[in-house]
Amino acid sequence: MNFDPALRLHDPALRGFASDNYAGVHPLMIEAIAAANEGHQIAYGEDVYTARLQQVMKAHFGDTAEAFPVFNGTGANVLSLQSMLPRWGAVVCAATAHINTDENAAPERIGGLKLLTVETPDGKLTPELVDREAWGWGDEHRAQPLAVSITQTTELGTLYTVDEVQAIADHAHGHGMALHMDGARLSNAAASLGVPLRAFTTDAGVDMLSYGGTKNGLLYGEAVVVLSPAASEGLSYLRKMDMQLSSKMRFVSAQLIALLESGLWLESATHANAMAARLRAAVERMPGVTLTRPTQANAVFAILPPGVADRLREVFRFYDWDNATGEVRWMCAFDTTESDVDAFAAALEGLLAAQG
Amino acid sequence: MNFDPALRLHDPALRGFASDNYAGVHPLMIEAIAAANEGHQIAYGEDVYTARLQQVMKAHFGDTAEAFPVFNGTGANVLSLQSMLPRWGAVVCAATAHINTDENAAPERIGGLKLLTVETPDGKLTPELVDREAWGWGDEHRAQPLAVSITQTTELGTLYTVDEVQAIADHAHGHGMALHMDGARLSNAAASLGVPLRAFTTDAGVDMLSYGGTKNGLLYGEAVVVLSPAASEGLSYLRKMDMQLSSKMRFVSAQLIALLESGLWLESATHANAMAARLRAAVERMPGVTLTRPTQANAVFAILPPGVADRLREVFRFYDWDNATGEVRWMCAFDTTESDVDAFAAALEGLLAAQG
Amino acid sequence: MNFDPALRLHDPALRGFASDNYAGVHPLMIEAIAAANEGHQIAYGEDVYTARLQQVMKAHFGDTAEAFPVFNGTGANVLSLQSMLPRWGAVVCAATAHINTDENAAPERIGGLKLLTVETPDGKLTPELVDREAWGWGDEHRAQPLAVSITQTTELGTLYTVDEVQAIADHAHGHGMALHMDGARLSNAAASLGVPLRAFTTDAGVDMLSYGGTKNGLLYGEAVVVLSPAASEGLSYLRKMDMQLSSKMRFVSAQLIALLESGLWLESATHANAMAARLRAAVERMPGVTLTRPTQANAVFAILPPGVADRLREVFRFYDWDNATGEVRWMCAFDTTESDVDAFAAALEGLLAAQG
Amino acid sequence: MNFDPALRLHDPALRGFASDNYAGVHPLMIEAIAAANEGHQIAYGEDVYTARLQQVMKAHFGDTAEAFPVFNGTGANVLSLQSMLPRWGAVVCAATAHINTDENAAPERIGGLKLLTVETPDGKLTPELVDREAWGWGDEHRAQPLAVSITQTTELGTLYTVDEVQAIADHAHGHGMALHMDGARLSNAAASLGVPLRAFTTDAGVDMLSYGGTKNGLLYGEAVVVLSPAASEGLSYLRKMDMQLSSKMRFVSAQLIALLESGLWLESATHANAMAARLRAAVERMPGVTLTRPTQANAVFAILPPGVADRLREVFRFYDWDNATGEVRWMCAFDTTESDVDAFAAALEGLLAAQG
Repeated sequence: MNFDPALRLHDPALRGFASDNYAGVHPLMIEAIAAANEGHQIAYGEDVYTARLQQVMKAHFGDTAEAFPVFNGTGANVLSLQSMLPRWGAVVCAATAHINTDENAAPERIGGLKLLTVETPDGKLTPELVDREAWGWGDEHRAQPLAVSITQTTELGTLYTVDEVQAIADHAHGHGMALHMDGARLSNAAASLGVPLRAFTTDAGVDMLSYGGTKNGLLYGEAVVVLSPAASEGLSYLRKMDMQLSSKMRFVSAQLIALLESGLWLESATHANAMAARLRAAVERMPGVTLTRPTQANAVFAILPPGVADRLREVFRFYDWDNATGEVRWMCAFDTTESDVDAFAAALEGLLAAQG
Repeated sequence: MNFDPALRLHDPALRGFASDNYAGVHPLMIEAIAAANEGHQIAYGEDVYTARLQQVMKAHFGDTAEAFPVFNGTGANVLSLQSMLPRWGAVVCAATAHINTDENAAPERIGGLKLLTVETPDGKLTPELVDREAWGWGDEHRAQPLAVSITQTTELGTLYTVDEVQAIADHAHGHGMALHMDGARLSNAAASLGVPLRAFTTDAGVDMLSYGGTKNGLLYGEAVVVLSPAASEGLSYLRKMDMQLSSKMRFVSAQLIALLESGLWLESATHANAMAARLRAAVERMPGVTLTRPTQANAVFAILPPGVADRLREVFRFYDWDNATGEVRWMCAFDTTESDVDAFAAALEGLLAAQG
Repeated sequence: MNFDPALRLHDPALRGFASDNYAGVHPLMIEAIAAANEGHQIAYGEDVYTARLQQVMKAHFGDTAEAFPVFNGTGANVLSLQSMLPRWGAVVCAATAHINTDENAAPERIGGLKLLTVETPDGKLTPELVDREAWGWGDEHRAQPLAVSITQTTELGTLYTVDEVQAIADHAHGHGMALHMDGARLSNAAASLGVPLRAFTTDAGVDMLSYGGTKNGLLYGEAVVVLSPAASEGLSYLRKMDMQLSSKMRFVSAQLIALLESGLWLESATHANAMAARLRAAVERMPGVTLTRPTQANAVFAILPPGVADRLREVFRFYDWDNATGEVRWMCAFDTTESDVDAFAAALEGLLAAQG
Repeated sequence: MNFDPALRLHDPALRGFASDNYAGVHPLMIEAIAAANEGHQIAYGEDVYTARLQQVMKAHFGDTAEAFPVFNGTGANVLSLQSMLPRWGAVVCAATAHINTDENAAPERIGGLKLLTVETPDGKLTPELVDREAWGWGDEHRAQPLAVSITQTTELGTLYTVDEVQAIADHAHGHGMALHMDGARLSNAAASLGVPLRAFTTDAGVDMLSYGGTKNGLLYGEAVVVLSPAASEGLSYLRKMDMQLSSKMRFVSAQLIALLESGLWLESATHANAMAARLRAAVERMPGVTLTRPTQANAVFAILPPGVADRLREVFRFYDWDNATGEVRWMCAFDTTESDVDAFAAALEGLLAAQG
């Protein structure tokens, strides 16, 4: 049976700045899947790819690392946190954290966790900010703060330096709390910091990691990576009951191996960051454009004159970030091109001129 | 960057009869993924592939059908049942149902449901068997039986006829209960029954369907298919909080479209069933082999003389089904070949002879 | 302000055999509450009564015992089991267990547990029956059987001997499973066995106990009693989040102290058992009456000629036990009198004669 | 058997200002319990007291009111909210709400809800403050804000006027959200406002009420009161599975009847409020004492010079409210006397003088 080319339904010329998961799949990932195909492999993770993935992860994150491939980022976060905490546990996180704002309360409803949220200026926690909610141990009335979760890079396009992660880890550990990192855009952080992945994870004291693959070019697939073996328990059981156990797991692992062994992870992230920098540079001096956040990875946040955002969106899709202020978010992906950025900047410039 | 062929790690000559998810991906699915690649599509299901999938599903299941792609079968089952039942609901199912035996209590723990299980002779419920647990409505002490779940084909390789499904649906509806079908191997049932998919689902009174893609040759992906719109609620919210919302959903939908539009779904299932029939025919007269279940789809169950199963397993992997009786299960997949079956039968014959 | 005697709304002459919680409160319990009243005590269990309760419980259950007062029996069961099991745990129990049949799936929905149920002839598990479901450790697809729960006396009015409890405990422990006892009617068992409470609990290997107060004459109140400190964790936190933490806990503890220090617990249970024996003796030779279970505590089960049960119920309320067979259940309480029993027997005799 | 007076273990002269649940039971409640005793009543709420309670509640809250007695306040809150919301629902509440700070995440973990918390100056929401989190309907990534919960009187001792409640109710209803009131100290609000209970509940648009009994003098017992029948569903099932279904419910209902029929509810609340006013008046001009909140019901909040609080606590127990600022909370109960207040004020005055 042959594939019917009429089933290519979409217009590949359609481009945008809405999210790094509007992008498709890096072609290398499809090659990795095809290479892992044919013949039989034991389902549910006892295959040779998932075995090799352990070595690959150890090479990047150190000998203690153990990876549990899962389907998506919400799954990785809920599973990580649930495995770190007893039933009475709570997680200190930024109010802007994805786990708090964008997971329809899966951490609470599925994980059975309490999120103790803290307002931050830039999406980043500090030891002082952690302490706003890190108290009350032993009080049976209060959900027990036993973990901290930080996002790297953050939902606001900012990032933690190695020292900043270390400071939070030390502080959390000093309180008997463990540290989780939501690394949906971990590669972008490494690219921006110019250090190995382990420098700001394992070596900086992170205990558990949600390793992000999809936004870095995978078809699908993330991994829970245990960095401190004592920090989690029951992951294999929890992954199954949290509906994150892939039967044909070899294909998730094969993609992750291809990504991490080849250097593609870094190349793609470096490129996406560069496109965001190019976008920022192109728009930052345009009259009427206010850039609202530092651009430390692959996101640019801005406020535009009234009406401009909606007209611009007719050409390039992107999201409002804050309806109250009119702030919008522009994301660059592994497949964003210089032409995309230039066309976008030109379109914005045109609209601003027309308005002015 | 080029793909490193050394990353093909496995031996594609390895074959077995352990499960239809030990098989890999049908090549057409990889083509479908590649065709859906490039350019940007709205994430989380607002893409053109997921839109088209609705039409494809309606063509197979009728105009009321609405499909919600998800990652895996446990996800499809839990999501279906959770959307069908209030917080105090219970589901009548066979004791051998996958939801009861193989999902690490996700229906209870994540879905918040009670399973009211019934012993069956062959993995199949009947109206009379449903009534063993369908009672006690209005009694606040008892989890309220508000749905029935059946598996087609069953975990024991048997299947429901159209009339049998209809009888259960009528009976359930008469009690105000809705009917769910776990269709992880739905295509095998259609192939065996020789009727369209809707004949034993929508038209027979099934309200909600877990449509199985992975065992039918997909890389990954299943779908919750609503057949009776009144039978479920909140699916889009539940899918997100149950961690089953794929960001790059276009690729799940593209596979399902390619499977269902091309007829591949039926071809693959027909082939797998035929291989099981061939296997049964090859072994059923071998002395010492007791076939324990009818072979109505792609599974063969047998009891072998002591020690034979373990020696046979050194060549072809398969699972014990019942440790108490020594019953084993042999599954055929879309990629099982006649040679596989013949080699397996020859190996078994050799072991039996050596033993005799 | 004076109490308005018109607020005594009920007819205290109304008596029945429906359940031991249709009875009211033993007057000594009201005295205990009044004695504990006045002045301030620290809320939530840091009061002198709850402190003394620990000593009282140790006197009955041994030095390892620690008691956590709760509101009701379902609360005690769910809290006990939840504290004994990780999130992926399952409990082997009889299909007739209260936790399976009468708690609207609170163990599953609130506790997050799986119940692995076993059919029994008499409501009692044995090591062999436990083994029907005690398997599959390490298999991530199967809820992990890590505890056994037995009810003493059972929901069918039967009881476990000391040796029978010990055999199950040894067997469970040999599998690395812990043993929970639902002791809603624990006192009736002690009265029937003629041994101290600890003989068939702590000393027989029970790890966790739901100690029943309400059916033994309390106004309200039960206790989770930890017998093996290693068997549970986080009880104080779990009690709060399971909504079982009483603010004015001194009054629950004061009742339990008064019950257990005075010998009232045994006197009441002995009496209830004697009334059931009297009832059995009175009816067992009546033509048409089939007694369906042994009467080992305070319950009598019977099948009556068609129509008789409903007419008898017009005089004395009681419950059907099994609609399919027409079996009914008659319970005796601490306040059941010889006259109650004799009047009931006479009424039954009259109805049988009228029918004959 | 006689009650042993030696079992009165506590010193009734011990008094404090820690919480209104450090107080014991109003003697009228014990009389009500005794009057409801003897004879048999149907368990689980089908008794004559629970039937009468419905009439009593309708007299206070209007003809739509229906009461479901429960054990405690956390139970009443979780049950109310759970019955109001689908599985994907969220509740907008003040960050200081008891449901957010003092229930060990039972609303999230047991109720399966998300709390969308808002910082407030005084523990009170307003329509504007509600709007900080009331948005995002239809977005599957966001927990859906479908209810607002307010506390009357608040955790900070403030209260909502009738108009303020009405404004929030109108605003919530305009968004399709329902309004819940946590009325653990509802009677104190009525006493302070000088209006009937229904004026600031049913008539002001509140849909569901957690009616507080324990802090108003009951031994134990609260009630979920449905004010708008369309606002909740499945309460009887949810109450059982949430472990809040009392078997001997007649005694909870008898207390609530006696409280609400006699006027005791208002007398006790008025007294507690008056004692708080007396306390405030006594301390407000003491040098070094800063009163930090208005005293609108039975609570006084203050900051004392360093060290004074701890020394004062050696005589009268009370709680720190905010460790960061040194703020403390003093609560008055139905049994607080003028002498208690005067002695407390004198002790404080002495300590301040000693320090000065």
